[in-house]
Parts: sequence; C-alpha cells; structure tokens
Amino acid sequence: MAAEMRALSGRADLCSINTATLGFQRPLGEVIDAVARAGFGGIAPWRREVEGQDVAGLARQIREAGLKVSGYCRSTYIPAASKAGFRDNVAANRRALDDAARLGASCFVMVVGSLPQGSKDLAGARAQVKEATAELLPHARQLGVRLALEPLHPVYAAERSCLTLLSEALDWCEEIEPAAASPALGVAIDAYHVWWDPNLARDVGRARGRIAAFHVCDWLVPTSDVLNDRGMMGDGVIDLPGLRKLVEGAGYAGLVEAEIFSAQNWWKRPIEDTLDVARQRFSTCV
Amino acid sequence: MAAEMRALSGRADLCSINTATLGFQRPLGEVIDAVARAGFGGIAPWRREVEGQDVAGLARQIREAGLKVSGYCRSTYIPAASKAGFRDNVAANRRALDDAARLGASCFVMVVGSLPQGSKDLAGARAQVKEATAELLPHARQLGVRLALEPLHPVYAAERSCLTLLSEALDWCEEIEPAAASPALGVAIDAYHVWWDPNLARDVGRARGRIAAFHVCDWLVPTSDVLNDRGMMGDGVIDLPGLRKLVEGAGYAGLVEAEIFSAQNWWKRPIEDTLDVARQRFSTCV
Repeated sequence: MAAEMRALSGRADLCSINTATLGFQRPLGEVIDAVARAGFGGIAPWRREVEGQDVAGLARQIREAGLKVSGYCRSTYIPAASKAGFRDNVAANRRALDDAARLGASCFVMVVGSLPQGSKDLAGARAQVKEATAELLPHARQLGVRLALEPLHPVYAAERSCLTLLSEALDWCEEIEPAAASPALGVAIDAYHVWWDPNLARDVGRARGRIAAFHVCDWLVPTSDVLNDRGMMGDGVIDLPGLRKLVEGAGYAGLVEAEIFSAQNWWKRPIEDTLDVARQRFSTCV
Repeated sequence: MAAEMRALSGRADLCSINTATLGFQRPLGEVIDAVARAGFGGIAPWRREVEGQDVAGLARQIREAGLKVSGYCRSTYIPAASKAGFRDNVAANRRALDDAARLGASCFVMVVGSLPQGSKDLAGARAQVKEATAELLPHARQLGVRLALEPLHPVYAAERSCLTLLSEALDWCEEIEPAAASPALGVAIDAYHVWWDPNLARDVGRARGRIAAFHVCDWLVPTSDVLNDRGMMGDGVIDLPGLRKLVEGAGYAGLVEAEIFSAQNWWKRPIEDTLDVARQRFSTCV
C-alpha cells in the first residue's frame, strides 16, 4: 500500500540541510547553529568539515541543537589501479565510518568513484566497488550506520561514479546483502541523479526498505556546469512532489535533505538567506 | 551466435563521416568531395546543409562520389506545449523524411526532444514522441527510410531527449512496431550516449535487427562542455572495440559513423586534417 505523502508545509523539522548547500563558507560549528536556528530538523556534514576536528564535540553540538544527522558525506572513491590503492581506499572509508558513527549519522553516503587513471574498464571498477562494499558492510552494521550507495547521474560515470542507475544500486544491495530483515546496506536517492530515469517509479518502488537517504535540489535549464550549477528546489524542471510521492510511497519516513552545489549562485549568498529560501521551498516545491 | 568482428584496419570504406564532425566550415558539396577523397565509404549530412539546396543534385553528387548515406540528421524535436505545435513538428519531420529518401539515406536519425517550455512532465513528452513516431512510421516505410530512435545521454534529458536508455528505445520499437520481420523502426546506438549503461551488453543484444546506425566518438576526461567537447575516437575513456563487438555481434553490418561535436578542437582544424586523423583512428581505436 502506498503511504500518504507527508505535508512538508511549515515542517522544516522534516527537512535536513546538506552543508555543501551553504558552500563551506563558515566553520561547521557556526553552520550547525544557523541550521538549527532556521528550524530544520537535520544536517548532513562533509568529512572536510569534520576530520581533524573535535568530532565528539561536534557530535554533541549537533545533538544539543536538536538536529539529526541525515547522512555523512562521503566515501573515498574506491576503484584504484593497484591493489595497494584499493586497500588504502577501503581503509579510509572504514575510518570515515567510525566518524559517521560518532556523529550519529543515519547513513554514510557512498559516492563510489569510477575509472582509475588510464582505465576504460567500467566493469572492473564496478567489481572493486562491490568488493569494498561487502567488506565495509559488517563494520557499518556493527556501528549502526547504514551504507547508502548513491547512484550518480550518468554524466559523472567517467570520473565520479561507475554506479549510475538506481536499479543497479538495488541489484548490488541484493547481491551483497540478500534477504536482510533490517538492511544495513541501502541507497541514497538524489533527485538530481535519477529524475530522468524512465524506470524511476518501478525502481523506487523496488527500493522499499533500502532507502537510506532522499536528497533534493533541481535541474536548471540551461545548466552551465553539471557539477556546480544545481538549482534550488522549484527553480528547475524536476517534478519533486512526484518523486517524493514515490519515495514516501515506498515507505521512506526519514528527513528530506537539500543538497545544492551552486558555485555561481547560492554559495555566494549569506548562509542565512539560503537557509531561508530553502525552508520556503521545502514548504511549497517539494 | 556472435558474428566475428570486422577488421576496420585500412577499411575506411566501412566508415562514414557525420558532417557535424567537420564543424560545418564548408558547403556540403565540398565536404562530400573531401570525404570521398579521404577514402570513406559514407557520409551523414545534416538538414541545415541540405534544406533549401538542390537536394537531387546533392544526392547525385554523393552517389557519384561512391558514398552511402549512413543517416540523415536529424528530426525536429517533437514534444510541444500545444496540439498545433505538435502537428507542426510532425509535419516538419514528414518533409525531412522525404529529403532523407531523396538522399538515399539508410535511416532518419530521431533526436526526439524533451520537455516543452515550462513543463515538468517527462511522461507526457514521451507519450508525444511515441505518438509522432507511430504516425511517421508508415511514411518512412513507404519511402524505404528507417526511423532510427536515438537514445541520448541522460545529461540531455531536460532539453534534447526524453528518450535516454537504449532499453527504453527498444521498448518503444516493440510497442510501436511489434514483431516486424523487416523493421522500419530501429535505433541509433551512439557510443557517447550509451557507454556508461550497466545494461549495455544485454540491451545491444536485444537490439538485434533494430540497429539502424552505430555512431562513435569518445568521452574526454575532463569534459569541458557536455554538448560540444566530444573526443576523437581513442582520446577518451570509452571502450570502443568492446562496444563495436557487441553491436556487430548483434548482427549490425552497416557503416560505423564518426560523429564528433568539438567546438574548441576538431571544428577549428582544416577538414582534411580531421578526416585524416579519423581514418587512422578507425583503423586503430574502434
């Protein structure tokens, strides 16, 4: 049975802010306070803001601000040209998982990487990612942090993610962790990456029980830069309510997270202004 | 049974040049001569070079130069905000099909278009394209020109093609023209658009009998512009021999067509130089 869609109007507590949305202009401590002050229910920090800092202190600050951690971004790219490189990448992800647990993150977002320098072997890259995921999974389970495989838009297939289709991410989940009653391996569904997929309704339905994160932004027309010209919800062509209906219909009841890479627009604005607009758009456009 | 891969070395006669590769620097008449002089077996012209010209004369020139026409580029985008706009688009494609037949083109390349201005309704755009394709098909069959549905890379989903996956193109073929012994509806498989697809082997195999065109170029790392920074075969990360093996294994025996949009590089070079490099790369990298 499809669940009713939640009403997001006036419910910023159901929404989370990925700190990349604010352009890393200010230290995480200040961002935590600004996000909480704006009324949001969650935050998703990046390793660049956390590693080398007082992680326990940041975790306490987030908790005391009343924020959940909807995800911890992101994995070290996994495929490597050498076995030693592969081992290093797995080890880096294992350490990042420890921090994800310290922060109380509900998932560790896995942007998996793709072709090692000079390689044209996508199948080989995919095999490395599956091997690493299987190896990291028991550690994640023990820590109580879900691994969230994030299929990226195929425009990133060469450099950032050999994992592109939601259906492929689900295939990997079922292969690596079959028939789990309470899966520790799931997927992150990001509107920007999947909105175009003709099999979206089928695959989101299939993702029931595996949806560890739901990210929103918008696809601008025109897009000047596929990496860093993503749009605020409502400014582009993605049918976000339609997608949220699918995601919640598949049982997802977690936070809806705004993640907007926008070097020329939102990253140049005061973070309070961006938070204000994001809160309004969650109410009206998602 | 998988066919043997053809040897392309020294066989430019098995290769075709899409005129976009040469940047439209010179009139089609001169391009025809240059392509034939370079030893290629075919050419794929664009409507911008043909419409308003002496089409019968161009067709004769191509024939007398010993060139086949591997495709005629491309369809007017189909989805429109109004019924009148949709009718206009279908009519424009009907006229272009007549020119495709005059040129002796083996197929008419359908880049189908996507969201009308202001729309977020991808499903509606897809329905319009299927309706138009079904309507154009009898005309194409009568003319002896195949319709080649070209799934475009998902990066173009908002503005250029609501049709992105090869599997979706094949679904449409089977829906619109089921169980055809000699299908007039087929697909154009372009390496740039499909190389990342995890289901590529499965779907190319499924395309047997429907492959109307096979286009090659390369995906550069980094890519500065997803529209006009495509690479010469061998300069990027696509496993072109692997893809050609799949395509020929599925029974394709037509010309292999180079189509390279490259505003900052190849389009700035003398067309004879580009043809020379393309001929070498067909021999060694495809």
